[in-house]
Amino acid sequence: MGQDVVLNEKDKKILLDSIRSVPDFPKAGIIFKDITTLLNDKDAFELLMNHLENRYKSYNLDFIAGIESRGFIFAAALATRLKIGFVPVRKKGKLPSTTVCEKYELEYGFDEVEIHLDAFNDKKNARVLLLDDLIVSGGTAYASANLIQKLNVSLVESCFLMNFTVLDGKEKLSKLVPVYSVLEI
Amino acid sequence: MGQDVVLNEKDKKILLDSIRSVPDFPKAGIIFKDITTLLNDKDAFELLMNHLENRYKSYNLDFIAGIESRGFIFAAALATRLKIGFVPVRKKGKLPSTTVCEKYELEYGFDEVEIHLDAFNDKKNARVLLLDDLIVSGGTAYASANLIQKLNVSLVESCFLMNFTVLDGKEKLSKLVPVYSVLEI
Repeated sequence: MGQDVVLNEKDKKILLDSIRSVPDFPKAGIIFKDITTLLNDKDAFELLMNHLENRYKSYNLDFIAGIESRGFIFAAALATRLKIGFVPVRKKGKLPSTTVCEKYELEYGFDEVEIHLDAFNDKKNARVLLLDDLIVSGGTAYASANLIQKLNVSLVESCFLMNFTVLDGKEKLSKLVPVYSVLEI
Repeated sequence: MGQDVVLNEKDKKILLDSIRSVPDFPKAGIIFKDITTLLNDKDAFELLMNHLENRYKSYNLDFIAGIESRGFIFAAALATRLKIGFVPVRKKGKLPSTTVCEKYELEYGFDEVEIHLDAFNDKKNARVLLLDDLIVSGGTAYASANLIQKLNVSLVESCFLMNFTVLDGKEKLSKLVPVYSVLEI
């Protein structure tokens, strides 16, 4: 599984300070954690990407799967730094070729995520990391992990920039795949 | 403006061959160019990113702006390779802080794109590249370029993996900002 590289407290604080808190978005009572202020700060973005590269360079990964659409940002950036493939997990109806699909429950209603059936090039025993910006209830991440595991690859870990400890998404997802979160909020 | 690095014909063919054509998506009669097969091919993805890095490393860029959501993939990957900031241009309603917004015409109806008012950190004379996967009619790109120019930065160039020459989006956009497309289709 490679070395268990985690971020030191000083660097965690730099990243936390670079994320903007926006009250009452998308609705009243919610404090939205805005990562655009991390991404447009080249030092904070570089700190994060260096950390992810250091953690995962020894994992012998073949692909990084990113969840639409903020997960695309971190997954594509890490994939090109590790010189491996990038795979999108998308909302239903966006991927043009044959897909597998997973439905999951939201607070009110359902949503669905999809992945191409040949997303991992039919590579035997491919080693895959799942990456997204945050985990709260974990519904999207759990469905995405399930989809990836249906494709006969090895889902080595799932990684999130932020874990919102107010809900137990991380614990639930841990039953399916190891979970690493850079920041606990 | 830096060196005018363009891709040689052999490498263009490698990239073109890595892009899958899917007939009748999203609707009958359209042949969809599926870039997921380029992205999950580590050699093709690396070839493209090396090319973009080589072209833009001498442009002294401060930020790369990517258009939601496939543009996020290429823009974030290039930003981390150049160790500069990434800025998302998003569909209306997704960005949490104060934005500027631009409406543009579609085949039927209208759409809107947004950018944070402080997307470029109020950096004076910031040098910005706009990046997306493809340009056809150019409506989204034109609106995005307009938005960026409202923020008192220098939009140095707009870059697309694919230009669909069936429409004149590239010509229209060229009146606003220099346009580079890696592949002509």
